Order: sequence, then structure tokens, then C-alpha cells
Amino acid sequence: MYYQLTVVQFTKMLKNLSAILEKAEGFAALKKVDMSVLLNSRLSVDQFNLTRQVQITCDIAKLAVARLTAKEAPKHEDNETTLAELQVRIQSVIDFLATFSEADFSESAERSISQPRWEGKYLTGHEFAIEWAIPNVYFHTTTAYSILRHLGLDVGKKDYLGEMPFKA
Amino acid sequence: MYYQLTVVQFTKMLKNLSAILEKAEGFAALKKVDMSVLLNSRLSVDQFNLTRQVQITCDIAKLAVARLTAKEAPKHEDNETTLAELQVRIQSVIDFLATFSEADFSESAERSISQPRWEGKYLTGHEFAIEWAIPNVYFHTTTAYSILRHLGLDVGKKDYLGEMPFKA
Repeated sequence: MYYQLTVVQFTKMLKNLSAILEKAEGFAALKKVDMSVLLNSRLSVDQFNLTRQVQITCDIAKLAVARLTAKEAPKHEDNETTLAELQVRIQSVIDFLATFSEADFSESAERSISQPRWEGKYLTGHEFAIEWAIPNVYFHTTTAYSILRHLGLDVGKKDYLGEMPFKA
Repeated sequence: MYYQLTVVQFTKMLKNLSAILEKAEGFAALKKVDMSVLLNSRLSVDQFNLTRQVQITCDIAKLAVARLTAKEAPKHEDNETTLAELQVRIQSVIDFLATFSEADFSESAERSISQPRWEGKYLTGHEFAIEWAIPNVYFHTTTAYSILRHLGLDVGKKDYLGEMPFKA
């Protein structure tokens, strides 16, 4: 289940985010503004801009899966300044997630998971996944979406959720 | 697991949303503006306002749990115009969710779930929970948060995520 909730679903959300950013590139061209204007936009003066929202989404996705499975995550320097670089980063996390399988999560529920900022405190893997990682990935993908929506990009819930595996 | 992902975690998010709205009430008083100004705010002209974001969060939470368990959800008329009324609605969904237990979800994964707008198409309960209900609840709670953040309310990630069950 953790594999479905993290690897599979985070991969889907990263692909959705990538597609939304691609639409944003077309929107910037149409409006004749540099894409950096969009990437530097934010909803509040003391909230992270679009570039940072994308970087954080990538980091939470890769670190959540790495911590739940006790594997090493690839490092990223947070030095992206263009959309193309952000797309490369998203793809690198998608590629990393593709290296996992259900079996990697067999001990995830009971694992003790901490993070640098938590000053030695920890959560169980179950708590970490359900209460921290999952709500966080959706928070930052939604915020990236909302920054662009606020700027006028014509996207809707379907762009955020992606395709549903409907049966007739 | 579906119980944890939906009943437990949606209850937590509804409580967090309620607390954020309570902070917003203090903010409106401080700024000497009517709370209705905040409730009618939106991030984009064609996106739902704060009131509607709260109503939708409530609806997705109650309907997701009702559909996964084949129970009836309480009806709400979407006629709230004040914060007090929205808080009553949030509490009514929290109370509804409190009537469920793990056992109610024993057949959720395989259940066929459809919704009025899906024109007869359906998802399995597993797909419905993971790909539709959960991302949607986080989407609308984040959007409600973002509308208020954009207006200047001093809230942060902790208000959104709520307390973590940290162990020392």
C-alpha cells in the first residue's frame, strides 16, 4: 500500500505537475512574458515562489520514498533557474521512483523515521507517510498549481488530478 | 488502511481547516474588515471562493467515506453564508466521520464506486481513495489555506499539517 501511495501516486503527481508547467510555458509565450516571471511568482510575500514549490515537491517525493525504504536519494543542488532545468529535476525524481517495487516497502510501517529539522524526534513510517509525506506532496503541487492559476493560466482540477482509470 | 487514510486523516485536516478559519476571524477583526470579505475571496476569477472551498472539502470527505463503506452521508444545502455556519458544517462532517471504524472498510478496496458526474463510469474503491478522494481533500484544504495566506493571514505549514505524533 505504501508503494501505491507514494511511488505510484507521487510519480503521477510529478507528471501532472510537469504537464502544468509545460502549459505555463505556452501561457508565458502567449502573454509575451519571460517564463522567469512565472517561476518567481508567489501567492504571499513570505511564501516560496513557483520554482521553490517545484523543488520542494521533488524533494519530499524522493526523500519520503528513500526514508520509507532506507535507501539513498539522489542529491539536488536547488540551483535550477529555468523551466527546462526544473523539468529535468522532476524527471530525475520520476526516474528514481521507478527503481522501487512493492517489496522495498515491506518494513516501512514500523521503521523509525526522522529528518534533520526534527532534532532527533521521529515518527513511525506509517505516521510519516500518512500524516507528513502525503499531505506535503499534495500541498506543494496544489500551491504550484495555485500560483499559476492565480496568474491566469487556464488549468483545472483534471490537470492536478491527472487521468482517472475509469471503467465503463 | 483506508480508515486511517480517510476517516482519521480527513478528520485531522478538517480540524486544521477549522483552526485556520478561526485564525482568519481574528485577522479580519484586526484588519477591521467583515469576515465575508475573506469568505468571498478567491485566487482566480474562475476558481471557487473560500466558502466554496470549505464546502467542497467537507463534501469530498463525507462522500468519500460514505462511498467507500456504502453508507449514507448527511445532506448539506450549501447555504452557509457566515463563518459560524461553515464551522457547524465542518463539525457535522467530523461527527459523521466519528461514526466509522476500521471494520466498515473491509470491502472498500474492491467496491465499484461511481459519482453523479461520471456518467456511469466507475473506479475501484482503491483507485477512488488513492487517486481521487485523497488528492482532492488535500487540494481543497490547501486552496482554502492559500486564499487566506494570499490575503495576509499569518499561517504556515504547521497549521495545514497539524500536530505530528513525534516520539523522542
